[in-house]
Amino acid sequence: MVTVAVDGNGADLGPAEVAAGAELAAASGIHVLLFADAAKVGSVAGSVEVIDAPVSIAKAADPAYAVRATPEASIVQAAKAVAEGRAQALVSGGSTGSTLAAGLFNIKRDRGIYRPALALPIPRPGSRPVLVLDVGANVLCRPEHLVQFAHMGSAFARAVMGLEAPRVGLLSNGEEPSKGTPDLRDVHERLSGAEGAGLNFIGNVEGIDVIGSDRVDVVVTDGFTGNIALKLIEGVTLRTFAAVKAAGETSPYSHVGALMLKPALQALRRHSDPELIGGAYLLGLREVGVVTHGRFTRRGFRTAIELAARTVSEDVVGRTRASLIAAGAQRGAGTDGVPANPTAA
Amino acid sequence: MVTVAVDGNGADLGPAEVAAGAELAAASGIHVLLFADAAKVGSVAGSVEVIDAPVSIAKAADPAYAVRATPEASIVQAAKAVAEGRAQALVSGGSTGSTLAAGLFNIKRDRGIYRPALALPIPRPGSRPVLVLDVGANVLCRPEHLVQFAHMGSAFARAVMGLEAPRVGLLSNGEEPSKGTPDLRDVHERLSGAEGAGLNFIGNVEGIDVIGSDRVDVVVTDGFTGNIALKLIEGVTLRTFAAVKAAGETSPYSHVGALMLKPALQALRRHSDPELIGGAYLLGLREVGVVTHGRFTRRGFRTAIELAARTVSEDVVGRTRASLIAAGAQRGAGTDGVPANPTAA
Repeated sequence: MVTVAVDGNGADLGPAEVAAGAELAAASGIHVLLFADAAKVGSVAGSVEVIDAPVSIAKAADPAYAVRATPEASIVQAAKAVAEGRAQALVSGGSTGSTLAAGLFNIKRDRGIYRPALALPIPRPGSRPVLVLDVGANVLCRPEHLVQFAHMGSAFARAVMGLEAPRVGLLSNGEEPSKGTPDLRDVHERLSGAEGAGLNFIGNVEGIDVIGSDRVDVVVTDGFTGNIALKLIEGVTLRTFAAVKAAGETSPYSHVGALMLKPALQALRRHSDPELIGGAYLLGLREVGVVTHGRFTRRGFRTAIELAARTVSEDVVGRTRASLIAAGAQRGAGTDGVPANPTAA
Repeated sequence: MVTVAVDGNGADLGPAEVAAGAELAAASGIHVLLFADAAKVGSVAGSVEVIDAPVSIAKAADPAYAVRATPEASIVQAAKAVAEGRAQALVSGGSTGSTLAAGLFNIKRDRGIYRPALALPIPRPGSRPVLVLDVGANVLCRPEHLVQFAHMGSAFARAVMGLEAPRVGLLSNGEEPSKGTPDLRDVHERLSGAEGAGLNFIGNVEGIDVIGSDRVDVVVTDGFTGNIALKLIEGVTLRTFAAVKAAGETSPYSHVGALMLKPALQALRRHSDPELIGGAYLLGLREVGVVTHGRFTRRGFRTAIELAARTVSEDVVGRTRASLIAAGAQRGAGTDGVPANPTAA
């Protein structure tokens, strides 16, 4: 049975809502260690073990400092449970920064990994989600980081999203290999060569392809561009739906039309519901972490815990490692003069 | 009377459609020099002067080379007409690359400008457009370039978009000044200090603000990020409208609703019509250039020519220059050790 360590503090609706999600996930055969303020959790049924951890650093201004200075914090205890093998995956209720820091300091990078990345499956109306990474863990990325993100994303898409040969694209300002910054041209060359071995690399993709087309499954980019892309998509989607709603209020006639169309539009919005996605996946550590959205209800936490368990049963970490080794793209493989990650086992 | 030089080749619908747009603009008191294949233009009425220029480099793979090697090309002749004072603004029918190259080599950068930028007013449903620059002229930008883009964009928004104190934001991965790359933090510091004098600089803005909020009027970014942002917005908008349309086809009931809502949705789409925007504005040269979309009909070309004339009557170039001088942000101002642009008058 897979055990998932969950940080229950930090969620907008409080630890009890996270606990309710954990109960739902436990019902599908997952063991949950829930680190949260036990007084706020109340009693839980099923295979959910509550560890009293009332201290939260989800709102800390300097997450890296807070993680080091607050070993009793729920996210640190949850990450330690994973590092020590008491759990095989981490789910956190809200803060990206503290999850990233707690993961890096405790679970640590997997062997051969330069940098972990945050990967987010973004819903595409009428189609499958597109996996975008990095959406914010690393503002500045070197070419070898992006090469690894391609392998991490592909392994995740195979294991968790069920794609046989996910199409991996490099986000750039044009499709031609000559487009983009010098670093991106370097990444394009590497992924087109030996370091792309085992990947279905389709070359550069443009902004329009991320959501506007179905030609790519995994979009590789640096954490700065990825973060902006993610929030742009969110803003445009919100604005467009608001405008469609407002359009329904322009006349009594359109109002009736909007009412009749409402169930179909609600189905469309449900399709894009972030609670179906589980959250952003922290890849590149020795186990996978999932950062949920603070606004999630129990439904979202259930998804997050179930998908976290799936990263374990489908061995995302092992598949990524194998993919990087086969392509000679792991840290310390000899191409970069950097010794292998001394923190890895 | 303002004279606008127009490259009539390169438009998808051909030179006759551009000529029809020129006639409409001429009717509002603008003199147009139309450089195009005269045989395809036919006869034109009004204050439109056709100069036979059948050679087009709109589809050239290497626009910079094509511009240098093809002095007879319509875009080069049109840019020269502006450089020689026969016209005061340039409108091109399609290719960004050749317009940028022809503008740089012939019209040349204005005094004190490092790099021209491509600025695009992007429609926001239910609100004013947001001006984003650079959307693709410069893949790599130094901090001093972005500082100048802020002044260019602000001057344009005042002069052409009619905003008194346009709110200028720097696109980053978080609102705090500490967010972003080291270069962006530098830009934030400069714009918050003396080099932001005269600007209504509101600090960093996030991806969600570009379209999703109304808190910013001018978004400053490098040409790589700007290009990706622009195409992302296009992709999400297309996809969302397609999904709304598909939602209307899920049941007979929703179908009737969609029919009733259709006029309101069409009004919404018209609001976001790129032909109302005129195109992307090439700022930083000694006169303004406008790059239209190849798909435009006469309506779009009319808008482009009229707004190009407006950049002249409202003195976008002079306002930008004054803004840069007042802030000490012009090239050669002494902060960068680079002599003033020797190509400027």
